[in-house]
Formats: sequence, structure tokens, C-alpha cells
Amino acid sequence: MPVIQISCNKLTREKKRELVKRITEVSSEVMGLPESTITVLIREVPPEDVGVGGILLSDRD
Amino acid sequence: MPVIQISCNKLTREKKRELVKRITEVSSEVMGLPESTITVLIREVPPEDVGVGGILLSDRD
Amino acid sequence: MPVIQISCNKLTREKKRELVKRITEVSSEVMGLPESTITVLIREVPPEDVGVGGILLSDRD
Amino acid sequence: MPVIQISCNKLTREKKRELVKRITEVSSEVMGLPESTITVLIREVPPEDVGVGGILLSDRD
Amino acid sequence: MPVIQISCNKLTREKKRELVKRITEVSSEVMGLPESTITVLIREVPPEDVGVGGILLSDRD
Amino acid sequence: MPVIQISCNKLTREKKRELVKRITEVSSEVMGLPESTITVLIREVPPEDVGVGGILLSDRD
Repeated sequence: MPVIQISCNKLTREKKRELVKRITEVSSEVMGLPESTITVLIREVPPEDVGVGGILLSDRD
Repeated sequence: MPVIQISCNKLTREKKRELVKRITEVSSEVMGLPESTITVLIREVPPEDVGVGGILLSDRD
Repeated sequence: MPVIQISCNKLTREKKRELVKRITEVSSEVMGLPESTITVLIREVPPEDVGVGGILLSDRD
Repeated sequence: MPVIQISCNKLTREKKRELVKRITEVSSEVMGLPESTITVLIREVPPEDVGVGGILLSDRD
Repeated sequence: MPVIQISCNKLTREKKRELVKRITEVSSEVMGLPESTITVLIREVPPEDVGVGGILLSDRD
Repeated sequence: MPVIQISCNKLTREKKRELVKRITEVSSEVMGLPESTITVLIREVPPEDVGVGGILLSDRD
């Protein structure tokens, strides 16, 4: 049942595969729950949709 | 004021229309609140952005 | 894999049971997915943590 | 560390810039935290993915 | 319909009132939508439930 | 800027510390970003607020 939502920059398919695999392993181990119960949702957020310290990431690049 | 966020696979416009209508009806009835107070937000998540049990849905198909 | 997050007012255990049952049924039917794949997360939000139209719900009551 | 997630209609880059700047200023001031600690995430939701009162926004227009 | 979710440290009722009022004003103005359409949800997150840079906030204090 | 939101069962302080540390390490490594940019938010969800397959977790125990 654990649900892990990741908001991040753009990632390749290969990176997503690795991220989901390893995040699930770590969570399963720490929580003491089978990996099959864990859902990971990735949301790639474009730099113009993220503000840090009041400034869009797309204005920093 | 209730807000219902749905992360799911790709749906047709017709399916979204039905989902929003019925989810709102059920929620209104159970919560005892007017339908007009309920907001539903759908997020279609591509299979390469979902991991279940450590494996991307796009790698299962 | 569908994940449904519900932010709402306080509900009794019985109401939560009914809400989860019926929301899952509707979603399963509309999405064409088995009920077992659907996760529902409820978050009861106190009226002092919700603003509608700029006013806290706790200031309306 | 505060994280502010905004689900809204489509906005121009200029509007996003202004929204992030002002939301961060207000939050920093009210919370008593430096602006640099605040992250804002915008999600533009298409009108066919939003239901209010059981009806898709795209069916109201 | 815009929904604004704020995850932050503990706030007094008075601070929440001010935050909701001002965030709604700014959003309404920038988005060009009536204040009545905007919902704000606050979630106070205890310092032991937040990690920044891999360290719990409660371990920094 | 990556934000990772974890909805899970109740965890001890020690488990949270480990979870945040390791999730941040893995994410930093896969995303190629410094650990200092990553925020993790944990939400412990009581079993009566989670439904899997239409049944509350609290009704399964």
C-alpha cells in the first residue's frame, strides 16, 4: 500500500527504471513490507513549472 | 471543498466524464455534502512513470 | 496501480468503509481494471486547514 | 522546506513567473522562513481532467 | 477549481487565516479567476516527517 | 528541487531517519543532483484511511 510520489526533472527511461527499482528496494527494506505492495509514481516537472526561492528554474538556467 | 485526486492510466474523454460524474455522486452521498462542493482532478500517468513492485508498468507490457 | 487521494472533512469509520468500497467499485468499472489494483488514501483535513474563497472553513461555521 | 503544489488552468510563462514570485513572498512572510527554503510546483490541468460538481470543465465551456 | 496544497511547519490559527487569505488573493489576481473558485489545503508536517538533504528536520534542531 | 512524498504505515523515528537518508542517496545518485536539493515528506496513514481492493486495511487486520 505505500505510495511514493516523485516530482523531479526530466529523466530517461533507463533512469526511471533504476529509480523505481532502487526506491522500492530501500522502502521495502526499511518498512518491512514486500516490494509488491509498493507503488511509485513519477511526475516530470518542466523547469518553467518549478519555483525555488521565488524564481522559476527555467529563469536560472 | 473535498478534493479527489485520481492518478490512473490513459482514459478517453467519455470515460473521464463518467468517472467524474459517478465519483462525485458517491462522494456527495457518503459525505453528506452537495455535489457542487466536490472537485475531482485526474492525472493520467504514462506506464513508464509508474512502478509497481519495483518494475515499470511499461516493462511489464 | 490507480491511486485515489481524497481530502475531506472528518468521517466515521463506517463512512470511510463505504466510501472506499464504492469509489473502488466505480473506478474499477470505468477504468476496466480489477478492484485489487486500486488504492484509496483518505486524508481528513481539519476545518482550520482548509480555505475556500480565501476564508478558513473554521471561520465560516 | 515548505512545498506548495498548485493545480490550475493553463498559464503563460509570464504568469507562472509572477505567481511563483508572489506566492513565495507571501508564504515566506507569513511563515517567517527565508524565501530560499520554499519550493513551488505548478501543475496545469487540462479542462477535460477536472470535474467540479460532477461535470468536466471541458463540458461547461 | 484551482487547488493549492501547502505542506509546511506548524502554524497558529491566525497565521493560517492570513496565509489562506493572501495566497488566494494573489492566485485569483494572477490567474484571472474569482477567489470563490480557489481551494487551499494546508498540511502541517512534523519535523520528524521531513527530510532535507537526507537529514530529518528534527535532527537539525 | 525534487520532492518525494511517501504515504506509508506508521514508522519509528529511527526508521524515518533511515528511510529519508537512503531515499535521498538513491535519488541524488540516479538523478545526478546534489542531496541538498532533495526534499522528502512522509505521511503516516492510519490503516482506517487506506483502502486496497475496496477494503480498509483496518478491516483486514
